[in-house]
Amino acid sequence: MEFRIEKDTMGEIQVPADKLWKAQTQRSLQNFKIGTEKMPVEIIYAFAILKRSAALANQKLGKLSDAKAGAIVAAADEVLAGKLDDQFPLVVWQTGSGTQSNMNVNEVLSFRANQLLQEQGSDETVHPNDDVNMSQSSNDTFPTALHVAAVLAVEELVLPKLNVLKATFQAKQEAFKDIIKVGRTHLQDATPLTLGQEISGWTHMLVKSEKMIQVTNEFMKELAIGGTAVGTGINAHPKFGDMVAEEISAYTGKSFTSAENKFHALTSHDEVTTAHGALKALAADLMKIANDVRWLASGPRSGIGEITIPENEPGSSIMPGKVNPTQSEAMTMVACQVFGNDAAIGFAASQGNFELNVFKPVIIYNFLQSARLLADSMQSFNDNCAVGIEPNHEVLANNLKNSLMLVTALNPYIGYEKAAEIAKKAHKEGTTLKEAALATGYLTEEQYDEYVDPATMIYPNAE
Amino acid sequence: MEFRIEKDTMGEIQVPADKLWKAQTQRSLQNFKIGTEKMPVEIIYAFAILKRSAALANQKLGKLSDAKAGAIVAAADEVLAGKLDDQFPLVVWQTGSGTQSNMNVNEVLSFRANQLLQEQGSDETVHPNDDVNMSQSSNDTFPTALHVAAVLAVEELVLPKLNVLKATFQAKQEAFKDIIKVGRTHLQDATPLTLGQEISGWTHMLVKSEKMIQVTNEFMKELAIGGTAVGTGINAHPKFGDMVAEEISAYTGKSFTSAENKFHALTSHDEVTTAHGALKALAADLMKIANDVRWLASGPRSGIGEITIPENEPGSSIMPGKVNPTQSEAMTMVACQVFGNDAAIGFAASQGNFELNVFKPVIIYNFLQSARLLADSMQSFNDNCAVGIEPNHEVLANNLKNSLMLVTALNPYIGYEKAAEIAKKAHKEGTTLKEAALATGYLTEEQYDEYVDPATMIYPNAE
Amino acid sequence: MEFRIEKDTMGEIQVPADKLWKAQTQRSLQNFKIGTEKMPVEIIYAFAILKRSAALANQKLGKLSDAKAGAIVAAADEVLAGKLDDQFPLVVWQTGSGTQSNMNVNEVLSFRANQLLQEQGSDETVHPNDDVNMSQSSNDTFPTALHVAAVLAVEELVLPKLNVLKATFQAKQEAFKDIIKVGRTHLQDATPLTLGQEISGWTHMLVKSEKMIQVTNEFMKELAIGGTAVGTGINAHPKFGDMVAEEISAYTGKSFTSAENKFHALTSHDEVTTAHGALKALAADLMKIANDVRWLASGPRSGIGEITIPENEPGSSIMPGKVNPTQSEAMTMVACQVFGNDAAIGFAASQGNFELNVFKPVIIYNFLQSARLLADSMQSFNDNCAVGIEPNHEVLANNLKNSLMLVTALNPYIGYEKAAEIAKKAHKEGTTLKEAALATGYLTEEQYDEYVDPATMIYPNAE
Amino acid sequence: MEFRIEKDTMGEIQVPADKLWKAQTQRSLQNFKIGTEKMPVEIIYAFAILKRSAALANQKLGKLSDAKAGAIVAAADEVLAGKLDDQFPLVVWQTGSGTQSNMNVNEVLSFRANQLLQEQGSDETVHPNDDVNMSQSSNDTFPTALHVAAVLAVEELVLPKLNVLKATFQAKQEAFKDIIKVGRTHLQDATPLTLGQEISGWTHMLVKSEKMIQVTNEFMKELAIGGTAVGTGINAHPKFGDMVAEEISAYTGKSFTSAENKFHALTSHDEVTTAHGALKALAADLMKIANDVRWLASGPRSGIGEITIPENEPGSSIMPGKVNPTQSEAMTMVACQVFGNDAAIGFAASQGNFELNVFKPVIIYNFLQSARLLADSMQSFNDNCAVGIEPNHEVLANNLKNSLMLVTALNPYIGYEKAAEIAKKAHKEGTTLKEAALATGYLTEEQYDEYVDPATMIYPNAE
Repeated sequence: MEFRIEKDTMGEIQVPADKLWKAQTQRSLQNFKIGTEKMPVEIIYAFAILKRSAALANQKLGKLSDAKAGAIVAAADEVLAGKLDDQFPLVVWQTGSGTQSNMNVNEVLSFRANQLLQEQGSDETVHPNDDVNMSQSSNDTFPTALHVAAVLAVEELVLPKLNVLKATFQAKQEAFKDIIKVGRTHLQDATPLTLGQEISGWTHMLVKSEKMIQVTNEFMKELAIGGTAVGTGINAHPKFGDMVAEEISAYTGKSFTSAENKFHALTSHDEVTTAHGALKALAADLMKIANDVRWLASGPRSGIGEITIPENEPGSSIMPGKVNPTQSEAMTMVACQVFGNDAAIGFAASQGNFELNVFKPVIIYNFLQSARLLADSMQSFNDNCAVGIEPNHEVLANNLKNSLMLVTALNPYIGYEKAAEIAKKAHKEGTTLKEAALATGYLTEEQYDEYVDPATMIYPNAE
Repeated sequence: MEFRIEKDTMGEIQVPADKLWKAQTQRSLQNFKIGTEKMPVEIIYAFAILKRSAALANQKLGKLSDAKAGAIVAAADEVLAGKLDDQFPLVVWQTGSGTQSNMNVNEVLSFRANQLLQEQGSDETVHPNDDVNMSQSSNDTFPTALHVAAVLAVEELVLPKLNVLKATFQAKQEAFKDIIKVGRTHLQDATPLTLGQEISGWTHMLVKSEKMIQVTNEFMKELAIGGTAVGTGINAHPKFGDMVAEEISAYTGKSFTSAENKFHALTSHDEVTTAHGALKALAADLMKIANDVRWLASGPRSGIGEITIPENEPGSSIMPGKVNPTQSEAMTMVACQVFGNDAAIGFAASQGNFELNVFKPVIIYNFLQSARLLADSMQSFNDNCAVGIEPNHEVLANNLKNSLMLVTALNPYIGYEKAAEIAKKAHKEGTTLKEAALATGYLTEEQYDEYVDPATMIYPNAE
Repeated sequence: MEFRIEKDTMGEIQVPADKLWKAQTQRSLQNFKIGTEKMPVEIIYAFAILKRSAALANQKLGKLSDAKAGAIVAAADEVLAGKLDDQFPLVVWQTGSGTQSNMNVNEVLSFRANQLLQEQGSDETVHPNDDVNMSQSSNDTFPTALHVAAVLAVEELVLPKLNVLKATFQAKQEAFKDIIKVGRTHLQDATPLTLGQEISGWTHMLVKSEKMIQVTNEFMKELAIGGTAVGTGINAHPKFGDMVAEEISAYTGKSFTSAENKFHALTSHDEVTTAHGALKALAADLMKIANDVRWLASGPRSGIGEITIPENEPGSSIMPGKVNPTQSEAMTMVACQVFGNDAAIGFAASQGNFELNVFKPVIIYNFLQSARLLADSMQSFNDNCAVGIEPNHEVLANNLKNSLMLVTALNPYIGYEKAAEIAKKAHKEGTTLKEAALATGYLTEEQYDEYVDPATMIYPNAE
Repeated sequence: MEFRIEKDTMGEIQVPADKLWKAQTQRSLQNFKIGTEKMPVEIIYAFAILKRSAALANQKLGKLSDAKAGAIVAAADEVLAGKLDDQFPLVVWQTGSGTQSNMNVNEVLSFRANQLLQEQGSDETVHPNDDVNMSQSSNDTFPTALHVAAVLAVEELVLPKLNVLKATFQAKQEAFKDIIKVGRTHLQDATPLTLGQEISGWTHMLVKSEKMIQVTNEFMKELAIGGTAVGTGINAHPKFGDMVAEEISAYTGKSFTSAENKFHALTSHDEVTTAHGALKALAADLMKIANDVRWLASGPRSGIGEITIPENEPGSSIMPGKVNPTQSEAMTMVACQVFGNDAAIGFAASQGNFELNVFKPVIIYNFLQSARLLADSMQSFNDNCAVGIEPNHEVLANNLKNSLMLVTALNPYIGYEKAAEIAKKAHKEGTTLKEAALATGYLTEEQYDEYVDPATMIYPNAE
């Protein structure tokens, strides 16, 4: 491997000759050989958006020449086009301010900008700190990139996929709206509902989660940029924060603003914690939905078996012909992961001191993993399972017919206690509910047939 | 102890003669000897609000006589006045639908209502299921009470106390707005800010948390009532849910509504999970604030010692004269507890099956504990610590004077690298920054004095 | 209310005249109005054991007169007899060293000891700090009491109850050892096993958990006592730690020792964290067991219904005759709580600084709650559910007969792929496995009957 | 891209022509496009160890020909040599039994084994299910691989690195054993200790954690192998489990055994949960140590500054000359991650049903991430920070001299209350302790100088 010599305030260091990064990136590579988790590419891209926005703002403020600003923007656009992905080798487990990743971006952008300037015959030179990082600090850029990456992940990954699954459930709830089935509470037979109604509960989980994710996501649209080193904005122009937020908004199409209080923006991650709380609630809902699906599809002979789901792969390496609800399994594992991530984020968010919280990389690593996993697993569950859910009419009808909890319909007529007596009698004697009801003499067959009609038990009916 | 015989659908059982509850409460008492945690009184009161509201709605619907409705309302009002607190002995660790606590309330209210009716000479009798529980199920009443209790805890406990502490910080931030001090990032000296600015970061954490708690709290104002057993509303009038929500709103002064989808309302606790996520974010902020306070007050001789806090009690049983930041300690322990509660709630919320989630008591137990602890610890921290925070001017001035990071002001004039050289030189040689700066010859004394002025380093300044 | 005046190093304060505590307890009461959670009584008792042990050690060392030591021991014995429970009013959310609870114990014991000395006509006076707290600090006594309380909770609560449930499962596994049933993996029908084998899995969870709890519990038998203020043992005799550990061992019958390194003992709670990790593993096992039980008992008509469990109470306030698996529900809620507690403990344990971790009360509060809830819920589940588990022979036999996964027995004879073909054919056509097998022509009826015998599929058999 | 056609029991599918996997791997790739987390290579290698061991056992049992067994072993050895790493493309978020990864291994080994057999001119053919998976199921092989991978990660990664750091601390504790310094409890000055003693607390955390990790790790040495599909061992020879465990032990040099109860081994992950609890306790200790290090090194001018740590990289992109405790930051972020992983593992472990827990991949993914991160961060912290810790003698001496808590030495002579009076007087008046002491007249200068000697306050001394 060939090397070139790079220099920073601590001295010289060898860098691979074919890489665009400089001394500080190289030092981090050598000093933090921890784990395999790279700083997420979403953070790198968010930094690129930020750096191009800062360059444009500094240009407008007359602090950066047109040539330099143009070169920085061009270099950032290459990053955003995915052309320089291999230039960001640092791991999550570095300095807690993310300074080294900020410098990695500053170094690569300045190196690449200088190449572009040279190609243009310019004699200007872009400096990683003085130009690319102009009016900025890691302490305000990293949390800015963190919020930008989180917002994009929520709005461009999680919510679109949530809507894919929601649409599927809405279609199923409409398709199955007339299929009456036994309800279940405490895993015990309960009063009836339609399969469409049951699925509408799943749909509505996604409806509610979507709204909660949206409102909590809004809080992350406030950006730390403009706070620089400790929140005071030292070395930045008073309008810099607002101007950069505007540039970022223009580029992303989201309405970011400069945070009202920069001391908060550098030290607190309450917005991310709350937003991830909404993701955790979605994970809890998805775990519930995935569990319902696999239980309803359990069997094929000795389970509940009220629905069928697609058979996507052989289920067992030893039991031939077995098909398993594997999409539910992937999704419930994802839910566990999101729960774990939530714990990590909350702890990390609590550990700031004075003017800075230095747990930023672990926070965004977990947030983005949750976003990706939730999004992907909703799409996968949708395509490979939800779209193929079909009712098993025979089982549904049989279960309904045998249910003892149809007795609830008698409460308004004979009272809770006599109704209970009938249900217990049928259960004990293994008879149908009707047989038991008539045997007690509490009501006639005509009355029974009128009162106990599943089709009238699936909506409010005690007028 | 004297007993009377009570009866339910399972047979006879002895109940202490002086108690108002009946068979089902007694069975639960005997079957669940688990732990010491009683069903929180906030849930009992929320149930009382709900039961009086349901009675009024049923009266308006013509389903409950005026006498019965009046007696149920009167009995509920006694509960709400705290007169019957000893009639609700059940523990959290019972059936996961909270059925037994619903029945405890039904039994006590019917018993007491019947006493009142008898006193009035009425010959009507209130039945726990048929009257007090009319048009209801545990499955919709418990989540309704859960939401009512949670909303009241947030709006009447957490937010008011948050505002007490916020007001104190706002006053301190104003009072200390001209005290310039050294900033700290990574626990290392950084560029200066004012003590008022530092505290404004704490204030703004409360500002942000307040907003996030408010928006997430709104989602809990949708109530399950009207869904009855499985969400279909069987045995309830179609308008019952809306009418009860209106009565609850009228009584509490909060705008509750009947949930749009009752299948969701019985099986998902995504709203509570998300709302507790915002409480967790507040806990993380409070941990950060409490840590800052105790570190800034550390010493008295060998710590940071930039502020003083009230001395409330002897700090040590062995070290005489020691005073400790005990309010910070209580608050940070509360934060740990809230983190733990958040994990319990999220997991419990994920474990619903089919038409019901049967982890409701553990969810609300943890939510209410968090709310109480956060509220109380904010008040306690405010009264016994925050109001007494005072600057230690001598230490603050000394630290500022010695800080090497004032060098940052030189970046725009001599660039990052030369500035670094100066700071390193001063650090290595143990000199002041100015001495080192002049020794390098990069700038004159006049320039140094003009550029390096802490008073100009506390706001955006690179115009 | 009448008061007397008490005094400490901070001045005078009013104390209720009928209480035995003094100034520092009273200050804590007034300064920490946070929550309803009192310092657990197990900690108070552990402190009483410690204080009597310390008095005896100091007496043997010639530092405490016989009269004083005797009085302290007598007072501690009254605490241990439960006679003074109302003298320990402090909450968990106090100073994180537990100093105030240590002083509460010192104050009450000295007050009561002085009453006893007076009754005896002695003119000696016991001082809370100089005598009861002699050679001690809160910083070594609280973690000592913490370990003593935790060890006793594990050995006298958790493990005995675990053994109760284990014995029940062992009896059931023996009783049902010949009942062959369908196995289930992924909620899908799988190869058969006996009901006894299935239950043996539950038994073995308790066997394994017991061992893991035992080995991790051992680490908590090292005590901080002797470390005093910062771990150096200042103001204590060099033999004091060992002597107190011996006295505690003698009193409790457990083999406690003085910790090898006292700096560790004051600042780290790795032993408690690890021990609670084993309790969490038990909770996970119990959740699995409780879930299995309720799923196997689900129905009565539309569930799995392979076992029956006791009917303990009416299950629904609206659905008459419904009986629910409420003991499983209590237990699974307990599991969620233990998971939450584990998060709180781990985080708290990580937050020590320098010579002390000041999150001790929240750690032991959660540990003891877990221990109590696990112990009580195992006993309750045992008495009200596990002992009454019975097989539903008809359902078990039917399910077994219909199972397609008996096909697995054919793998060694016709290979996995042909076996899969048979199972899929039977599933698709709704026939029995045998019908499908014979239709393929891969084997004869005699071969089928010989190979596919559930009774030979429940043990290793491919010789 | 070129493809070949592969077939399984569900039909035909295209597989990239240059890959060794077959239909089931390809199906999983297509059906689970979730996240970026591949099944950890440690699991693939553990599977290779297992498959070669199973082949050898089956060969000895006469069930597998020498040629086939030899080919499988040779193929597995290529996997273990890292030659086939690109043949295992599946993600963590697949079926919860890990069936697809088991089949991925079966497919690749059979494909490669057949290539080898062909090269040798053999006409035998290895089948993925019938040969490589002979006498096995995913349900027993995945948990076996899980335990093997976890044990190796603990014993070959975590413990060796723990010992590296422990040795460094032991050397430092010896080197600094005579440097007396002020102690700190509650962040407040306390009685003195030596820097060596302080570090001995850190050492002992590693000593204790090592022991706890060792004992909990032992439980994972029981293997599920031999249980096959549901724990009964169907289709396996009775001795198969023991024989495979012996082969694995021989290969790894660890003493694995076949689990006593296979129903437990397939459904419970209590051993992994407990073992990770010990890793979490280590993480909590490491967080405490890393925090101590960065606080002791805080400054350089306005912090505690009692030690210095290596300067490894520029600390700030805006503040020139700033050096930060970045190794502490990486380590504390790792601790947060381990806490989150612990939550995920515990939840996942609780979610088994009937004969199988289908959360295995998420459990081992988190376990191995914790192991890697802990190991790497201990090594990194050691090399880049701990080895370079040096005392700052001037600061240490100054702090000690000024400490008021030396007053504790007076307790045995003048009692706690008078000692407190002296400390408070000195604090209030800003004098030295000695000045205040003499001013009170409680003792003479000679007495003071005799009693208050830090060198006599660092060990038990109240004889």
